[in-house]
Amino acid sequence: MIPPDDPETGALPPTAQPRRVLRMRAGELTEVDDLVVDEVPVALVYNGISHAVMMATPADLEDFALGFSLSEEIIVGPGQCYGIDVEPVAGGVAVQIEIAGSAFMALKERRRSLTGRTGCGLCGVDSLDQVCRALPSLAPARGFHVGGVRRALSAIGAEQKLTKLTGAAHAAAWCGMDGTLHIVREDVGRHNALDKVIGAMARERVVPGTGFLLITSRVSFEMAQKAAVAGVSALVGMSAPTLAAVDLADRAGLTLLAFARGNDFVCYTHAERLGLDGA
Amino acid sequence: MIPPDDPETGALPPTAQPRRVLRMRAGELTEVDDLVVDEVPVALVYNGISHAVMMATPADLEDFALGFSLSEEIIVGPGQCYGIDVEPVAGGVAVQIEIAGSAFMALKERRRSLTGRTGCGLCGVDSLDQVCRALPSLAPARGFHVGGVRRALSAIGAEQKLTKLTGAAHAAAWCGMDGTLHIVREDVGRHNALDKVIGAMARERVVPGTGFLLITSRVSFEMAQKAAVAGVSALVGMSAPTLAAVDLADRAGLTLLAFARGNDFVCYTHAERLGLDGA
Repeated sequence: MIPPDDPETGALPPTAQPRRVLRMRAGELTEVDDLVVDEVPVALVYNGISHAVMMATPADLEDFALGFSLSEEIIVGPGQCYGIDVEPVAGGVAVQIEIAGSAFMALKERRRSLTGRTGCGLCGVDSLDQVCRALPSLAPARGFHVGGVRRALSAIGAEQKLTKLTGAAHAAAWCGMDGTLHIVREDVGRHNALDKVIGAMARERVVPGTGFLLITSRVSFEMAQKAAVAGVSALVGMSAPTLAAVDLADRAGLTLLAFARGNDFVCYTHAERLGLDGA
Repeated sequence: MIPPDDPETGALPPTAQPRRVLRMRAGELTEVDDLVVDEVPVALVYNGISHAVMMATPADLEDFALGFSLSEEIIVGPGQCYGIDVEPVAGGVAVQIEIAGSAFMALKERRRSLTGRTGCGLCGVDSLDQVCRALPSLAPARGFHVGGVRRALSAIGAEQKLTKLTGAAHAAAWCGMDGTLHIVREDVGRHNALDKVIGAMARERVVPGTGFLLITSRVSFEMAQKAAVAGVSALVGMSAPTLAAVDLADRAGLTLLAFARGNDFVCYTHAERLGLDGA
């Protein structure tokens, strides 16, 4: 994760940043500058107590804090919010929210009655320093090549049964290096679809260096993190990546392709591990 | 291909169900049967203690539980998972996961150190009966009509500045009944984009009956719930809805349009409140 540019001046990190990428288009691989959207950990802190951390675009965070407080019924109306202070800090952004005493008492009561929980993204995390977990060092995916990616992309559509019926599901797939789809799972949640594939891989004792993961969705921080934690060293997403995902992939040794459709893709990290045979 | 989990004795809810909807296509409004993907609350229960509730597609839940446990590093390997039992229960599905004593001790320790947190979807929820919150009864959106929807749809693209740069953000907008975009917010997370709009509406003291919400994403349960909690009675999504969202909209009195692009849309609930002027 890129820390805020200048915590001293209170400037928020930019919402998008340029990255040098390899673009495959019409059979041509070209190095170009690409703008990548960022997501940063945002801690919502009520009356001094950190309540939640979410990955978010670092813009309009006062609106976010007020809207979240209302949507989640932490406050019953905007009048119960006395002030919102957005502070770039090391590792993310802290949003200090001052709420009415009665709302804060109710929140504390609600938290006391929880036995704890996790969420769809940053599970069991309530402070910024817990966001970036230690990652395994990934061995290069031997035999990962453009031809396999292309074959997997052309095969995945036929396996998206729930999507064909409803237009509403995401798919994730574990693919052999030749592009064969060995495991495909669908879910309305893209995190869930990927977790299902990782679970099936574990049940089948799949060796993570023998293939790559394909997801039909965007590649956010948590998706890249799940792939790396599973020991997989190549991840292909059909839609856009976020900067947090790109930076995690870079650190972890994960080869990340995104905007992968038909014969085209953009390679964001570790292009040296991508074979061009079959290109 | 590794097969999906065997569905246990047909007890899980279906992943998609038919609903009678009104489809607007090429200027013609037709009543048709449509298949809608479902999402259900799934509680992950470790050694008898409920740890998390997530909205998920009710299929391959053993893969999901195992993959989640690995991705979130609740267990260090599949050998620490002794058994997974998927039980349809009132209000959702409980997945009982039996893990090694050492992993369970570590999980309890991790939970003890939490001060509590919320997540992107079901915030502060760790048992199934907390999922469906009481909703305000929504007054009909007076003046909600097809012409306004069309104008908002044609205007939103120009306002999606971060999406134009990066291809990776979702937008949400508060629109006047005539389709004027009054508030537009973007975020890599669709929940965040909507919360930002709801926060800005609160700051501006917007009266929720005077317009509708437009989101460029799918309409999941949480998105419909956020709209209803905000007191808004018309929600337009550009991609697919889930069944849980449709059912919530039906109960709450929310007019829900989805697959809204150009002049086309599908109306899932409370079509009686949708004016056809400007159609």
